[in-house]
Amino acid sequence: MTLQSQIVEQIRRMILDGRLRSGDFLPTTRALSEQIGISRNTTMQAYERLMAEGYIQTRPYVGTFVSAEIPETAFCADVCACGPKSGDITVDVSDANLSLRLENLRAHGIVNPHAKRLLADFWVGRPAPEAFPLKTWANLVRRRLNRSGAVLTEYRDPAGLMDLRQAIADHLGPTRGLTADPDQIIIVGGSQDGLNLIARLLIGPGSPAVVESPCYQGAAYLFESFGAELYPVPVDEDGIDVSRIPDVDRALAYVTPSHQYPLGATMSLERRLALLKWASECRSYIIEDDYDSNFRFVGSPVTALKGLDRGDRVFYLGTFSKSMGPALRLGFVVVPRAFAKPAQTLKALMNNGQPWLEQAAMADFMMSGAYARHLRRLRQLYLSRRNAALSALERHFGTIEVSGEDSGMHFVWRLPDGLPKAGEIERRALEAGVGIYGLNSGAAHHFGKAEESDRHLVLGYAALSETDIDLGIAQLAQCLGRNGATKPRSVRSIFVGAGR
Amino acid sequence: MTLQSQIVEQIRRMILDGRLRSGDFLPTTRALSEQIGISRNTTMQAYERLMAEGYIQTRPYVGTFVSAEIPETAFCADVCACGPKSGDITVDVSDANLSLRLENLRAHGIVNPHAKRLLADFWVGRPAPEAFPLKTWANLVRRRLNRSGAVLTEYRDPAGLMDLRQAIADHLGPTRGLTADPDQIIIVGGSQDGLNLIARLLIGPGSPAVVESPCYQGAAYLFESFGAELYPVPVDEDGIDVSRIPDVDRALAYVTPSHQYPLGATMSLERRLALLKWASECRSYIIEDDYDSNFRFVGSPVTALKGLDRGDRVFYLGTFSKSMGPALRLGFVVVPRAFAKPAQTLKALMNNGQPWLEQAAMADFMMSGAYARHLRRLRQLYLSRRNAALSALERHFGTIEVSGEDSGMHFVWRLPDGLPKAGEIERRALEAGVGIYGLNSGAAHHFGKAEESDRHLVLGYAALSETDIDLGIAQLAQCLGRNGATKPRSVRSIFVGAGR
Repeated sequence: MTLQSQIVEQIRRMILDGRLRSGDFLPTTRALSEQIGISRNTTMQAYERLMAEGYIQTRPYVGTFVSAEIPETAFCADVCACGPKSGDITVDVSDANLSLRLENLRAHGIVNPHAKRLLADFWVGRPAPEAFPLKTWANLVRRRLNRSGAVLTEYRDPAGLMDLRQAIADHLGPTRGLTADPDQIIIVGGSQDGLNLIARLLIGPGSPAVVESPCYQGAAYLFESFGAELYPVPVDEDGIDVSRIPDVDRALAYVTPSHQYPLGATMSLERRLALLKWASECRSYIIEDDYDSNFRFVGSPVTALKGLDRGDRVFYLGTFSKSMGPALRLGFVVVPRAFAKPAQTLKALMNNGQPWLEQAAMADFMMSGAYARHLRRLRQLYLSRRNAALSALERHFGTIEVSGEDSGMHFVWRLPDGLPKAGEIERRALEAGVGIYGLNSGAAHHFGKAEESDRHLVLGYAALSETDIDLGIAQLAQCLGRNGATKPRSVRSIFVGAGR
Repeated sequence: MTLQSQIVEQIRRMILDGRLRSGDFLPTTRALSEQIGISRNTTMQAYERLMAEGYIQTRPYVGTFVSAEIPETAFCADVCACGPKSGDITVDVSDANLSLRLENLRAHGIVNPHAKRLLADFWVGRPAPEAFPLKTWANLVRRRLNRSGAVLTEYRDPAGLMDLRQAIADHLGPTRGLTADPDQIIIVGGSQDGLNLIARLLIGPGSPAVVESPCYQGAAYLFESFGAELYPVPVDEDGIDVSRIPDVDRALAYVTPSHQYPLGATMSLERRLALLKWASECRSYIIEDDYDSNFRFVGSPVTALKGLDRGDRVFYLGTFSKSMGPALRLGFVVVPRAFAKPAQTLKALMNNGQPWLEQAAMADFMMSGAYARHLRRLRQLYLSRRNAALSALERHFGTIEVSGEDSGMHFVWRLPDGLPKAGEIERRALEAGVGIYGLNSGAAHHFGKAEESDRHLVLGYAALSETDIDLGIAQLAQCLGRNGATKPRSVRSIFVGAGR
């Protein structure tokens, strides 16, 4: 704080505290300068500022005095009565007209609080850091900035950069069997921003929201914050069990058909068609969160649910958080045609769209073909890492039951009977420097099935080298008293009898 | 589309259209290859994909046939009945369970649809493109990217980068007289994203929202979308007339004290204190949108309302859209202490925070002192441009009445009696290649005062060179039949008798 500011602040405080009152004279600038030993120029500037703000007035031959315009009632007694002074404000929002219930407000656990001090961390949703195409990205960013002209200083289409929307439309056709018009594509700040956009359209207090059980926390907790009535529906080896969706009308269903989060099932074609039929019959809409379909190890990627959606009932959520990195905060929603215009308007109202630079660089990255190559490289990398994780578990724990291992960046391990509960393992592993997590810590929510949650761990392997994976699992085995298994080693699917 | 994808797509369509039904045999891959003259490998891969997706099955010695698992009912009759085929989807959301009224949904006009074809454009809210510190920014971006390590591939604190929150806290003290803890600062994607965050906390259907009249559209229309009950309160030369706030309880008031949008008044100290008192007495909260306070030409910047807020009732909105550029989508909210935690949670639920790169570069830019220097340069530049605009208007129209010219990037011109209505001028000027706008086109909303709106133009001068300003105003004068004024030239304040 400059000397000038300090003087302004002190006089201001004295006026607001009532120590100086309307009409009270202030010392002349010369007197004040001499009194506190600073230059006259500084005191003059301080007085000018106080005048500009209306605290003091000056009149020739009379002097400088506290302004008369400040009403007596606005002084100490009342202003101070508004609340305690800064520093000891009480946390009290009980008199606020809240539109959501703060006491129930909760967010998905997406940032690992333990990350810094771990040797190996199986936290989900993190792509491989060393695989980020940093050099290419830095070049694209530099080139776009150099050619940016007036782009940075102007507001742009809140729905997103047309280059990127076109690149996404071009990408979705061959890879996801999904035909979308760039007009239906809204660029968002990652899946969560897209979810929020859709929820604002279709979820209000009491709205029925169908979610998978277990389900991604980010969706469930967001819907909850809007006051939705949640209908959890169990998943099995074919994805959400459509026949068990309760008899609700005009609902919004949130599903992860490519790789159910967290259990990892791929929704069967039969179920996909049944879900679309349900939506049509019950006047409902569907959110397809296609968060990691780029990494399918077995067979070709399955056509997106949105690719089958002739009734225009599916909102398709795509993200670059898994294929590039979450810090870009970049994703997209393909909205039903009927919602294209309202979604664009809402996006403007919500935040005027995403930053230009990330969008521009991503568009260039996609259109040059580098994105497709990057995805192929990542798929190979993640396959090796998945294999390393499965082998390491077998080596130490013998036969293991897993699910969701055909695709993506994580799988779920059902704990064998001899091992403690997930929470206990999590705790012990963290102490030993290994991050390994139960469903709940892994951003998944199991509705009313605590005992089921207790028997599963979710392992994100994408960000760990094979060496770190081996090290981490060995460490885990050690702190659980398993030093090499004696049982036969094999991997079984959790979904017994699933014809995969 | 590859050949393989084309085959997959055609067979898929035939199945879904009912031309191929469960149990129907498909030709062998060899037969199909010969029939359409492509390699056998391609047809085999296509069949494998269809199998993986569950459309077809194969049995040794039997052949390949359409899967039995697809329920008859899911075929053509039903799926097609869901809605028309893509391409001719009707826009119909009448059966949706909408949480907002789409027919009333409207957004602020922030992107100029005419921008491309104008010689001179007085559209508001655009900083000077040539003043953007592009070289420095590109360097900061490059350096941060080079040192980024695993930053890009990890989720980060949704409330924002601590470096930037600290830099903002350090900046707000001396420049705005506002003491904020970095914990109270949430980094957002511009003011609109911040408004949306606050509205989600405090506005639900029927919530009272006090707005200035005229007012910034982005706030009014957002509150409207949440179902708020709007209470427009007139502004005069001292800002919002607090005494005319209707008798509402637990309201949210949106104000622009530094430079009222659009009319430009600076809220007097008396009013500021009265507004804080009102909030305390009526258990209400205040949003202070401080969008362009960095550019004050007369006197020192006035202390922020939040700087006087001992009752912890003010949400302070800051943006880098005016001081840097809107395409960065970067701003911040200082929330009352009691709301720090809920606001952080809500930010995570809404979009997991802002992209890292813009935050990191901005933090470096601020901490190096370059931001403060940049602001000083901009202030000088905008002062010259404001003077050019005022002189040009005087030259052509004689005595002019303006408001809001002491600060910011725009002022409002009250049209003299001889001139047509604002809408008519806007139309004629656009035809002549000049963008000059009435309040409504200038993202302002006047409540029930159409005739008042008709007599004002809002001129954004910040993005135009002095030459372009001269050119634009001359062109405007010409298309309004004014070729040099004969009247005495002077500038008067719209707010007659205002002691400014």
